[in-house]
Amino acid sequence: MLRYKCTIAYDGSGFSGYQIQPKGRTVQGELEAALKRIHKDEDIHVTGSGRTDAGVHAVGQVIHFDSPYNIPIDRWPIVLNSALPDDISVQHIEEVTSDFHARYSVIQKEYRYKVYTGKIRDPFSRNYAYHFPYEINEDQMRQASQYLIGTHDFTSFCSAKTEVIDRVRTINEISFIRSNHELEVRFVGNGFLYNMVRILMGTLLEVGIGKRNPEEVPIILEKKNRVNAGKTAPSQGLYLWKVYYE
Amino acid sequence: MLRYKCTIAYDGSGFSGYQIQPKGRTVQGELEAALKRIHKDEDIHVTGSGRTDAGVHAVGQVIHFDSPYNIPIDRWPIVLNSALPDDISVQHIEEVTSDFHARYSVIQKEYRYKVYTGKIRDPFSRNYAYHFPYEINEDQMRQASQYLIGTHDFTSFCSAKTEVIDRVRTINEISFIRSNHELEVRFVGNGFLYNMVRILMGTLLEVGIGKRNPEEVPIILEKKNRVNAGKTAPSQGLYLWKVYYE
Repeated sequence: MLRYKCTIAYDGSGFSGYQIQPKGRTVQGELEAALKRIHKDEDIHVTGSGRTDAGVHAVGQVIHFDSPYNIPIDRWPIVLNSALPDDISVQHIEEVTSDFHARYSVIQKEYRYKVYTGKIRDPFSRNYAYHFPYEINEDQMRQASQYLIGTHDFTSFCSAKTEVIDRVRTINEISFIRSNHELEVRFVGNGFLYNMVRILMGTLLEVGIGKRNPEEVPIILEKKNRVNAGKTAPSQGLYLWKVYYE
Repeated sequence: MLRYKCTIAYDGSGFSGYQIQPKGRTVQGELEAALKRIHKDEDIHVTGSGRTDAGVHAVGQVIHFDSPYNIPIDRWPIVLNSALPDDISVQHIEEVTSDFHARYSVIQKEYRYKVYTGKIRDPFSRNYAYHFPYEINEDQMRQASQYLIGTHDFTSFCSAKTEVIDRVRTINEISFIRSNHELEVRFVGNGFLYNMVRILMGTLLEVGIGKRNPEEVPIILEKKNRVNAGKTAPSQGLYLWKVYYE
């Protein structure tokens, strides 16, 4: 068996999320169905770097799978893409050793969150950014984001439904990219809890419109209670941008 | 009655085209349904600058309608957008005199055609650009486009189903905007025949990949027969960008 590491992009609009489930169209489901067809009806399990929710996009999700096939490496993306629906695309594929694991070998992840700030809604970004037509003070958001950098217990910034016990994570970077009516926020860290980027983003936006002070952020962290943070920003603005391995 | 000139944007992916028809969701149909709701069940007819086909987008389509309502002008977009589905958006609205006509008063139109040239397909542009993963010689395309500028009989560059008798049109500008994996071609002229931009684009792309010489273009024009031009480029790359009035 050969192990393949595979970088994929998908438009999350048409999926009930990454992870396979009994009902609804999923990214993992489509990947496994495509691999099954390629492998003459043999089941091939796909392991992702992590899940993404319904509506969340990926530019650089990483998965691995094992295959008995030794297809030339530059043929693999073509073979896979011709078997996949057009809202998923294999961007890159490489052979890796069997100790590579798409989830356990992750050292860092990058998410981006896109906000469309135009006053009037834009039909082209409705599934690809969060329409937030308010005056935003980016400086205040930057200040607030500084309190999030570093190693913290992010219990206040994850869904109350989070089952993981250890909620300590390290955020290495939060940066802001502005162009015209689009604000893109980059989050880089060693791991993100359930809904964490969306709650961080929702809270930063509340700072941006003056509903909260940047100085509230360390207090929210300290409370270790989801109710203290801001709203969960909607899924369509979120992109799993890159997964970093050793 | 007051006449309103209204600039609208729409994502063409979910429409069977602009013009109302017995079956299928149309832009005109949605606009008239929204106006009817706003006008307490009164029928309000909408006149567009022209039709766009299924899958074709608009950034600046212009329509006019007459209304007995004297809603403050800055309230109109809000009222209309709250009644419209989220793949159509009213960008701007102004009151005009009753001699303004969205179709007959047009002096010039601008269309843009987007091509995605990345080798591997991009799920995010599948409905918003034509995936054309070949080496393109832009210089050759520029050369070919020069033969199209000016006043010509464009019979060879419109659908064989075109019913209009007079196929003489003037193209004032064809320009190329390149960024990364995207090539955007701008077409400005006094009018465009049925499928004209898509056939022009398909022909230019055939020049771009060396299937045709730029010098063939004047010969194609002269033949006045659709069969001599290139393929019709697909609808999802086309945008009605701007409509110019006096």
